Amino acid sequence: MRAVLLLQCPDRPGIVAAVGAFVATTGGNVVEADQHSDPAAGLFLQRVEFDVDASIDALRSDFGPIAENFAMEWSLRDLAARPRVAVLASRQGHCLADLLVRNALGELPGELVLIASNHDTHAALVGRFDVAFRHLPVTGDSAEARAAQERELGALLEQMNPDVVVLARYMRVLPAWIVERWNQRMINIHHSFLPSFAGARPYAQAHERGVKVIGATAHYVTPELDEGPIIAQQVLPVSHRDDPNRLERRGRDLEAVVLAEALRLHLEHRVIVYGRRTAVFD
Amino acid sequence: MRAVLLLQCPDRPGIVAAVGAFVATTGGNVVEADQHSDPAAGLFLQRVEFDVDASIDALRSDFGPIAENFAMEWSLRDLAARPRVAVLASRQGHCLADLLVRNALGELPGELVLIASNHDTHAALVGRFDVAFRHLPVTGDSAEARAAQERELGALLEQMNPDVVVLARYMRVLPAWIVERWNQRMINIHHSFLPSFAGARPYAQAHERGVKVIGATAHYVTPELDEGPIIAQQVLPVSHRDDPNRLERRGRDLEAVVLAEALRLHLEHRVIVYGRRTAVFD
Amino acid sequence: MRAVLLLQCPDRPGIVAAVGAFVATTGGNVVEADQHSDPAAGLFLQRVEFDVDASIDALRSDFGPIAENFAMEWSLRDLAARPRVAVLASRQGHCLADLLVRNALGELPGELVLIASNHDTHAALVGRFDVAFRHLPVTGDSAEARAAQERELGALLEQMNPDVVVLARYMRVLPAWIVERWNQRMINIHHSFLPSFAGARPYAQAHERGVKVIGATAHYVTPELDEGPIIAQQVLPVSHRDDPNRLERRGRDLEAVVLAEALRLHLEHRVIVYGRRTAVFD
Amino acid sequence: MRAVLLLQCPDRPGIVAAVGAFVATTGGNVVEADQHSDPAAGLFLQRVEFDVDASIDALRSDFGPIAENFAMEWSLRDLAARPRVAVLASRQGHCLADLLVRNALGELPGELVLIASNHDTHAALVGRFDVAFRHLPVTGDSAEARAAQERELGALLEQMNPDVVVLARYMRVLPAWIVERWNQRMINIHHSFLPSFAGARPYAQAHERGVKVIGATAHYVTPELDEGPIIAQQVLPVSHRDDPNRLERRGRDLEAVVLAEALRLHLEHRVIVYGRRTAVFD
Repeated sequence: MRAVLLLQCPDRPGIVAAVGAFVATTGGNVVEADQHSDPAAGLFLQRVEFDVDASIDALRSDFGPIAENFAMEWSLRDLAARPRVAVLASRQGHCLADLLVRNALGELPGELVLIASNHDTHAALVGRFDVAFRHLPVTGDSAEARAAQERELGALLEQMNPDVVVLARYMRVLPAWIVERWNQRMINIHHSFLPSFAGARPYAQAHERGVKVIGATAHYVTPELDEGPIIAQQVLPVSHRDDPNRLERRGRDLEAVVLAEALRLHLEHRVIVYGRRTAVFD
Repeated sequence: MRAVLLLQCPDRPGIVAAVGAFVATTGGNVVEADQHSDPAAGLFLQRVEFDVDASIDALRSDFGPIAENFAMEWSLRDLAARPRVAVLASRQGHCLADLLVRNALGELPGELVLIASNHDTHAALVGRFDVAFRHLPVTGDSAEARAAQERELGALLEQMNPDVVVLARYMRVLPAWIVERWNQRMINIHHSFLPSFAGARPYAQAHERGVKVIGATAHYVTPELDEGPIIAQQVLPVSHRDDPNRLERRGRDLEAVVLAEALRLHLEHRVIVYGRRTAVFD
Repeated sequence: MRAVLLLQCPDRPGIVAAVGAFVATTGGNVVEADQHSDPAAGLFLQRVEFDVDASIDALRSDFGPIAENFAMEWSLRDLAARPRVAVLASRQGHCLADLLVRNALGELPGELVLIASNHDTHAALVGRFDVAFRHLPVTGDSAEARAAQERELGALLEQMNPDVVVLARYMRVLPAWIVERWNQRMINIHHSFLPSFAGARPYAQAHERGVKVIGATAHYVTPELDEGPIIAQQVLPVSHRDDPNRLERRGRDLEAVVLAEALRLHLEHRVIVYGRRTAVFD
Repeated sequence: MRAVLLLQCPDRPGIVAAVGAFVATTGGNVVEADQHSDPAAGLFLQRVEFDVDASIDALRSDFGPIAENFAMEWSLRDLAARPRVAVLASRQGHCLADLLVRNALGELPGELVLIASNHDTHAALVGRFDVAFRHLPVTGDSAEARAAQERELGALLEQMNPDVVVLARYMRVLPAWIVERWNQRMINIHHSFLPSFAGARPYAQAHERGVKVIGATAHYVTPELDEGPIIAQQVLPVSHRDDPNRLERRGRDLEAVVLAEALRLHLEHRVIVYGRRTAVFD
């Protein structure tokens, strides 16, 4: 089995040695190891990937006392377990289609189990890929209609029980109770290089400001809109020739690639959230 | 002579033909021509570089009626004229040093005529390059001391009469009366990808927010801090390993390169400001 | 109608004025114009996009004498005409899938009319998108088997008569007679930043050489393998952590994006080939 | 003291634990640790930076048996020791000037002790910075003249005994006996993205081939020209507008930045050479 250990704890001497000794004791062989000290926060973070001939339960049980000794937050996982992925989308289909294709080609280190949308625009597209599609329309503008749709969505997610929820250009703000339920397991793509141009219509904002670079940001969702810990960002140079429509077209490729990258990093257990930041061990 | 024509005017049919005919009439040969239509603003912008055997005054005189006909804002310049450049700096020396070196190596399409600073940190460095250095300290924290230094600076700029003023990490906010005097002829480097992290300590802000990309922005200075039209931006990927000090170190190279690029574009008459934006014909 | 004029001719005074006058005479209004002089080659190249109320045939007829006068190679096209696109693929599906999705989402300025492959790996995927799929296997290793498949492919292309043929990771070398038939209308994606690592297994070559940057190159196909005029290239930084498999995975996104970009540029008539080079007016 | 341990050895279980235990035993605290396994080569590489209250000699002595046990190639260094840097240059001054400025601003984690050149073009510039300059002209085209200059250069390097020799656009091929003497301690900047355009006039070659991306490569020098292990590469997008002169101008910034980056990585002991490749732990 190939196992992944993620941990964070107060920094003090001896952590690396203790973790190294743990892996050696299990007869494991380290394949990848990466770590980070944040002196300002007094934190130590580490990711260790190792081959080992033991059950994940036995490993967890063996590691417990070490973790307790160093006051670690930690997880130990079997890399072969394929996490379940749910995707929420709206009218824009490029990020959704990109994930469908990666799933169909076997490039996703996880499994698409559900696509849900407040529009039925892409029902047929999803159907082509034999993935479950659920249409959750918001009927009218009333607060009640919104709340009803949110309850339906919340219940659907509970039922499908994905390991991660991906907002692939889902254009509705989710209520705090859903966001908190999927804390650090819900990834959004925002079509700007945050913190620039948070909120609505970022390409129009970028054009209005006359920037020479646009970007896309994948981040964990928190109750504060577009404020969650950033997992991945990419940018591309633009010029005065790029009007808002052209910015949008050029940005689409970026959004799809950044979202897929962030999802891969999450599914391979390469991301540790600490404070408002992430450490990405890739 | 190689001449450069920059123009902007309300967009309507016939502008390109009229400008083309003008150059043909002068016996000139177009070397580079680039143009841009902004339908939303109803504007047409053009840069034409052409070889011609005529005086700049004669050309300007010939072009006047065409410009009037199309209600153009325009300029016609001799590319061989080397603009005069003044640089303001503070304690950080990397952007200043970069410009000194480019000047010494003959890479700058202009001439450094003055370095002024509120600190004398780099007097010796500037002296090595035989460029005039003026130390304009602010003596004390009072409003009077600030105003006195600003008057001295304003007078010095009047006296030296540069074609462009470069703020090479000059860390004081200039008064509106100086900014307005050098409108569209004063270039600042800000050490973030604006509009993210305007104001003080952008690298600390970037680290606090946990971004995965940092940047630098060169822009024309306007009375609203860090809000002027952007000339050039560049970015580089960063990670959780980059603490604020490391961000600052890595950002320095970016700042120097972006500022030098923006200055070159300005000195080669490649930038047209329209509204809050620039068209850069490079 | 929105028309696009592409031209190249020996550089001499008066071309810009003549083209400007032509558009003015037709009552057209220039939307985009871009040009390039190559003094070393003595060439002038231009792309003009203009709105006009006339038939494409009338425009061509009117432009003929001007073109003759300046000895131009030229084309005049209606931008609304949607070119027909054929795609050849082999076992790797990411570039093919990317084009299928763009086509399905209406993002392609053309129409997929045919997918052909020497393998049937992606027959089902193509079927999901209601695009014609033809399996053209090579039966055995003999020269006769190869030639038979090539004849079949050549005949299929003749019959479908696409405006452009895209090699989306098609892993067979095409015979010169097919390449020449589709001269400047056949685009290949090579998975390296050419001219580095031409030929087979570029990611393995890149890893062996220890480069810190990999790339992808879209180019017109010529009889000399991987030597045709380059349309688009993109790169991404890599490190010692990237073994050949990881390079391949990371490169896939790049390949799909670069190929789609080159195809868009071609379909929007933004590319002029001159000598071994292209001018890309985007 | 802050110490840096670099090591490589055949990969087998227990290395990480042994190194972790070593640091713990010395009372040291790990500040940064990074490692890499290359399964194809059967190699394990590691860099550990740690704070410790001990002499470098004592540490080396303590680590010896561990290193022997795992058949390691290794080094243990005091990060505070500032390595001595010699620079060779020719007529182009931008890389040289960049290093002089970084040295003057205190940004170089080492000390410039010598600039030598086959031309005296930059004697005055170097003089401005109070760094020793030696002019080593080649008098005539004869093999004897070349050999005489090489002997003089070799003797000068022996005498100055730098820790690293930087070829900052030094345009002469060095003889094997000098290259071998400074094996893995001599860094060259080549003005292309190697392996493309090795040898002479890479910008002219790049223009001739019509590439859309140019680059610069810093690498350790080996007897085979432009074939040594690559430390750093950077690239920038170009277009048909970039003639060879413009490519050269735009490339200069890239060259200076990439060379300075590679030198910093070397001086901070972040590079391990294995086979034809480097692992860069940054």
